[in-house]
Order: sequence, then structure tokens, then C-alpha cells
Amino acid sequence: MATLPILQDHELSSEAAQLLNEIRAVRNTDYVNHFWRVIANHPAQARLIWDQLQTVMAPGALDPLTKELIYVAVSAANNCEYCVHSHTASAKQRGMTPEMYKELIEVIAMASQTNALANAMQVPVDDCFLADQGGD
Amino acid sequence: MATLPILQDHELSSEAAQLLNEIRAVRNTDYVNHFWRVIANHPAQARLIWDQLQTVMAPGALDPLTKELIYVAVSAANNCEYCVHSHTASAKQRGMTPEMYKELIEVIAMASQTNALANAMQVPVDDCFLADQGGD
Amino acid sequence: MATLPILQDHELSSEAAQLLNEIRAVRNTDYVNHFWRVIANHPAQARLIWDQLQTVMAPGALDPLTKELIYVAVSAANNCEYCVHSHTASAKQRGMTPEMYKELIEVIAMASQTNALANAMQVPVDDCFLADQGGD
Amino acid sequence: MATLPILQDHELSSEAAQLLNEIRAVRNTDYVNHFWRVIANHPAQARLIWDQLQTVMAPGALDPLTKELIYVAVSAANNCEYCVHSHTASAKQRGMTPEMYKELIEVIAMASQTNALANAMQVPVDDCFLADQGGD
Amino acid sequence: MATLPILQDHELSSEAAQLLNEIRAVRNTDYVNHFWRVIANHPAQARLIWDQLQTVMAPGALDPLTKELIYVAVSAANNCEYCVHSHTASAKQRGMTPEMYKELIEVIAMASQTNALANAMQVPVDDCFLADQGGD
Amino acid sequence: MATLPILQDHELSSEAAQLLNEIRAVRNTDYVNHFWRVIANHPAQARLIWDQLQTVMAPGALDPLTKELIYVAVSAANNCEYCVHSHTASAKQRGMTPEMYKELIEVIAMASQTNALANAMQVPVDDCFLADQGGD
Repeated sequence: MATLPILQDHELSSEAAQLLNEIRAVRNTDYVNHFWRVIANHPAQARLIWDQLQTVMAPGALDPLTKELIYVAVSAANNCEYCVHSHTASAKQRGMTPEMYKELIEVIAMASQTNALANAMQVPVDDCFLADQGGD
Repeated sequence: MATLPILQDHELSSEAAQLLNEIRAVRNTDYVNHFWRVIANHPAQARLIWDQLQTVMAPGALDPLTKELIYVAVSAANNCEYCVHSHTASAKQRGMTPEMYKELIEVIAMASQTNALANAMQVPVDDCFLADQGGD
Repeated sequence: MATLPILQDHELSSEAAQLLNEIRAVRNTDYVNHFWRVIANHPAQARLIWDQLQTVMAPGALDPLTKELIYVAVSAANNCEYCVHSHTASAKQRGMTPEMYKELIEVIAMASQTNALANAMQVPVDDCFLADQGGD
Repeated sequence: MATLPILQDHELSSEAAQLLNEIRAVRNTDYVNHFWRVIANHPAQARLIWDQLQTVMAPGALDPLTKELIYVAVSAANNCEYCVHSHTASAKQRGMTPEMYKELIEVIAMASQTNALANAMQVPVDDCFLADQGGD
Repeated sequence: MATLPILQDHELSSEAAQLLNEIRAVRNTDYVNHFWRVIANHPAQARLIWDQLQTVMAPGALDPLTKELIYVAVSAANNCEYCVHSHTASAKQRGMTPEMYKELIEVIAMASQTNALANAMQVPVDDCFLADQGGD
Repeated sequence: MATLPILQDHELSSEAAQLLNEIRAVRNTDYVNHFWRVIANHPAQARLIWDQLQTVMAPGALDPLTKELIYVAVSAANNCEYCVHSHTASAKQRGMTPEMYKELIEVIAMASQTNALANAMQVPVDDCFLADQGGD
């Protein structure tokens, strides 16, 4: 039901097959989800996205679970059904508890509500929030 | 430039004045930002939003800084200029370092990119991501 | 297929069971729709949303049908499949005729079109539309 | 600051000049707002949008004020700054009272909040909401 | 599953039947897709949309394939599942090759990523991008 | 007014300075726009985005102008003020004529209108549009 075939293993180009094996190894599971089997139709693009994702989601100043929570929040706001499901699953795998999930949902709902209020009333930004008055 | 006046202190109803004083006390600052001075035109609604915000953003399974990061992410995805500025400022006040901010931005950009890919290709959700097959 | 179970009656906490009975009584029907059975996983949040909804959607300066029309319009613009369906059904129950529905759809489509035009051409707001030139 | 010039009267093509005079006559004011002066760069498109707008916003099963409230709601959800301001002004001209405006804002905020909840939890639509099970 | 019936041929009003026959003739196929069978519940609106679509998508300074690519891009950004599918199919019919489709997807993803970056960091527009400093 | 400083040349890290010089060389102009001066606060991210942009926007099966038109369309749909302005300017530089621009705007408006109609009526996708019935 995607706009491109969900490629099975025997349909993959050698580059795509190599990428899917890498995904299996990193995730320690044989299952490779639809997103990668669809974007595998474009192996170079799939490689770029995977590499960027590994870099962005690696532990840093923010831990991987916090990053997944942020990912779910953006996906919900953009109403990406696929990404909401896949990253909610990822967040659970990285240790999101039911209580954390409850609070994540609450913050998403709260923010969406005040976003709507600020946009509907077109509240002008306070000068004190503007970090940089400079520029050319 | 809002659709309602940005009320000055002497223009507030007694309920609104009381709320703004409460905001000052909780935040330990005399400054009350535009959002509250605009929504103060509707004192009962302002009270409801403030109380809900205090509950939702309180420490719980997620700490207040993590909640602010999620708030910024939703506000950026919804492109609420006011909320992006006000909650980026709040996140800084709650300890967001420049490195954390860099990573927050990266995750928002990454998620927006893969949201667009999944939506453009209409990737169907994998069965294994579906938490609940039940229902009536 | 939600990210949380669609709770059946025997799976509800006592708080959630009480809320669902209240929903049945207010709506005068035994059927409780999925939204409440999913959010019932978080009984306190479900209670808050229900109470807020009852207050917001009550007759006031705007009648309940007009409020439902506005609800459908926001839900369509945010592309919330669930909310479009549930609030279109609610609007019909509150008396939305086929002709009203036709006009509702027309206004949503018209607004979406001119929103896109104004955003694509970045038309600056006329001074005369700005209600409040004040501020601090 | 638009991507196209905000045309002054002496810069208008004859078709555009005629349209702006028609707008003045219908609205009973000399002032023509930026949207029309920008889209006037494309006179045929401007004419099409104006005619469609006159038809869609005319009194029908829904009165013009209700239509303006819906227009504001869609524009807020799409975060079209221009349209929020211009249609909030139109709604006031058509009789929107401060109390009606308060309730409009409340419904927009409420809907945005439950839209976010339904999207974040991916609540599946109840069968009973589906108006038409047919199709080919 | 639409909010209105997907009308079968024998359920059409005479105006709607005439429109569907016109669609068949223009497209040189007997199949008429769901969008038209749903909006056919409102024959006058269906006629308006069809006529506007024929005008807008006709060859001009941009060729019909380029117009379809733009249509898919907007539909993906708005996450309209129906329109993504129907206009991706139209683009293929008008000659979109797999390589073109790959690049279309890449640009959509790239733009969504930088849109998110610019919105998250609220980058102010450079003066040199502003086409028109005029206005009244 | 960004959430990060708009860096002047003397404030750049050596990596960022090198990137900005590369941008100047590729574009054959001394002027470097705000987006790059803001994201230059995160030199590694800036480098990644720039390199990805050069790859994605290079001539391929789609020419650079067509890619810019698609970029503007996505940016308008996402209502990214910055990107609408900067990519409309880029499109003009790559040869977009006033007539092409008019048609671009028309397609964006048309698509936004039918997106809203399909979402508001929740039209189900026709089987014949579904490219791939496979999957695991």
C-alpha cells in the first residue's frame, strides 16, 4: 500500500541487502521494518538516512530515550502515522515506562493546545525571549 | 498585534490580577509574558490553562527539562513562533546546555525528514508495531 | 491498533469505570467510543479532558452545533482522522443538515486555499487588522 | 515583504482595477487589503478567488458569521497569520461579540488538544462513525 | 468510510452523472475515482472543483508533469493520504520515471528537514529576499 | 531574533568559516544568508545539511529549477516563512519566470484545497492507486 514496493530480501540490490544486514546487526534482530524495505528502492538515499539517523540518535548530551521521546512528539505533531507507531515502539524498547508515556502524551497535548491559543490570538513574541538582536 | 489587547496591570480584572501575581510568585520574577497578558482577557480560561500547565509540567516520571524539550519540539513542528521562543527560553532556564539544544534541533530535523519520507511514500505500519489488536 | 489498549469494561480502573458511566449518562447511550477507552488507560487525564470538553462545548454565546462545526473544521485542518469522524457524527446528532455540512466543507476548502495563497506569497498583515498596537 | 509587489492603484491592470472597485463596492469601503493587492498581480486568479469567496461565504444553511468563525478556526489550525488577522476582523464586522470570540478560541484550543491526543495514540475510528461502508 | 456516501452511477443526480461522464471522456477511462464519487454528493461544488482543476493543471508555463510533482509535494507536506496516492498515480501516468520519483521524494524530505530547522531556530528572513519593500 | 546568534564572520569557528567560504564559491557571491549563519553555531550539522543539499538539488532526472519549485511548494505547505522567501528567491535565480511563479502558486492553492476536501470527507483511497499490495 506504499507508493513503492515493500521489497522482500530476494528483491534487494546488493547495496540495499548490505544495508539491511547492517540494520539487523545494529538492532540485534532479524526483522527489518517496512520503512527500510520501501526506501530500499533507493539504496543511496536509504544509506544516507540510516547513517544520519545513527549519528543523530546516538548518546550525547541527550540520552537515546530522551531523543526517542522528542521523535515521537514531532511525529505526532506532524501526524505521521508510521513514525508515531515505529518510534513509540522504539521508545518502549529503550526503556520508556507506561508512566513516562502518559506524561509524554500529556505534554504533547498541552503544547498543542497552547500552540493553538498563541496562533489563534497571534500573540507577539516578548523582546526578552529573543536571544539575538544582532544580524546584518 | 495580537487579536486581543495585551493587558497592562491596571487593565486586569481582579481574577486575572490574582493569576498574574501567582505566576510571578511561582516563577520568582516580576515579568509576566505576553501570552498570559493576552489570555488574561478571558480570566477563567487563563486560570484553567495555567493550572493544567502546572500539573502537566511538574516533575514526574519525566523531569521538567525533558518536558520542556518535548514542548519545544511540538511547537517547532506546529510552527508556533511564540511557543518556540518562550519554551526555548524556559528550557534554557531549566538547564538546557548549548550541546543539548544542538541535539534537540538535530532530532527535530531528523524526525521531520523521515516523517516526510513516510508520508510521501505512505509506508504501511508493520503489524509488530501495533500495540493493541483488540477493540470492538 | 492504538499505541495503548482499547480497554474493555472489565479492564477499567474504578475511576475510569466511573467516568465511562458518566459519559454514558450524559450522552444517553451505552456505547462509549474508542477515544475514551484508550485515554482511560490514564484515568486522571481522561477525567480532565472530559470535564474540560463538557465546559467548552456547553451552550454559551455559541450554540453547541456551531461549536461542533468549528471542531470539525480544526480537526480537518489538523488532519485528525479520528476527530473528523467522531465530531462529524456529533455534529449530525446536534442537528447538522446535509446542506449545512456541504457549506461547512466548502468553507474549510476555501479557507485552506486562501491560507495556502497567503502563506505562499507571504502577504504582510494590514495595519488596520491589528487589534492592539500596545504592549510593553 | 510579500513575494510579489503589493500593487498600488496606479499599478493595476484594468482587470485588476475593475476587481478592486468591485471589492470596494461590495464591502462599502475604499480600503482594499493587502491580500487582494498582492494577488492582483495575477488578475485572472484574483477574479476566480473573489468570485468563489463570494459564493462560498454567502448566506445559506449557515449564516455568514458562522462561516467566518469556521474560517478563523481553519486559519488558526493552518497557522496562517494573515488569514487569522483578516478573518478575525471580518468576524467582528459581522457581529462576533467578545464572548463569542472567547468561545471560538476555546473550541479551537480544545480541538487541537484532542486532535493531538488522538494522533499521538493513533486511536482507530469506531465502526459506528463510518457513514458509508459501501464503495466499489 | 468517507463521511458521505461513495455514490454509485445509479445514485447520481443528473448534474453529477454528466460531470462523471465528462471526467471519463477527458481521462479516456471508464473508471471514476472515489474523490469524485464522494464530492458528487454536492454536484455544484464538484463541478467548480473539476473546472478549476482543469484550468490549473493545463499546460502553460509549467508542463502538466511538473504541476503533478508540485501537487504530490504539497499533498505529502499536508499529509493527505488520498491525494498522495491519487496524484502519485497521475504523475506516473504523465511520464514520471522511477528516477524522477526518487528525486521528488528527496527534495520533499530535504525541504521538510530545513523547514523544521528554520522554524525551530526561528531564523529571520534576510532583507535581500524580500521582493517588495513597498506597501501602503 | 533567532534562538541562536546570527554569526558574523569574525565569530565563526574555523570549520564554519571554511563552510561559508565554500558556500560563497559555489554561489559566486559574497553574501551568505541567515540560515547558514545561524546553523553555523553547529558546524558539523551545518556541513551535513549543506552537503546533503548540494547532492539533492543537483541536476538529475529533474532539473534544478523544477526542484526549487517543489521546495517552495513544500515550504509553503509547511508555512516556513524563511524557506518560502529564500527558495522563491532561488527559484527566480534559476530562471523561474513570473508566469511560472503564477502557475506554481495556483497549483499550491489547488492542491491545498483538494487536500482539505479529501481530509474533511476522509475519502478512502481507491484500490487502483495502491502500487504495492505485497509486504510481509
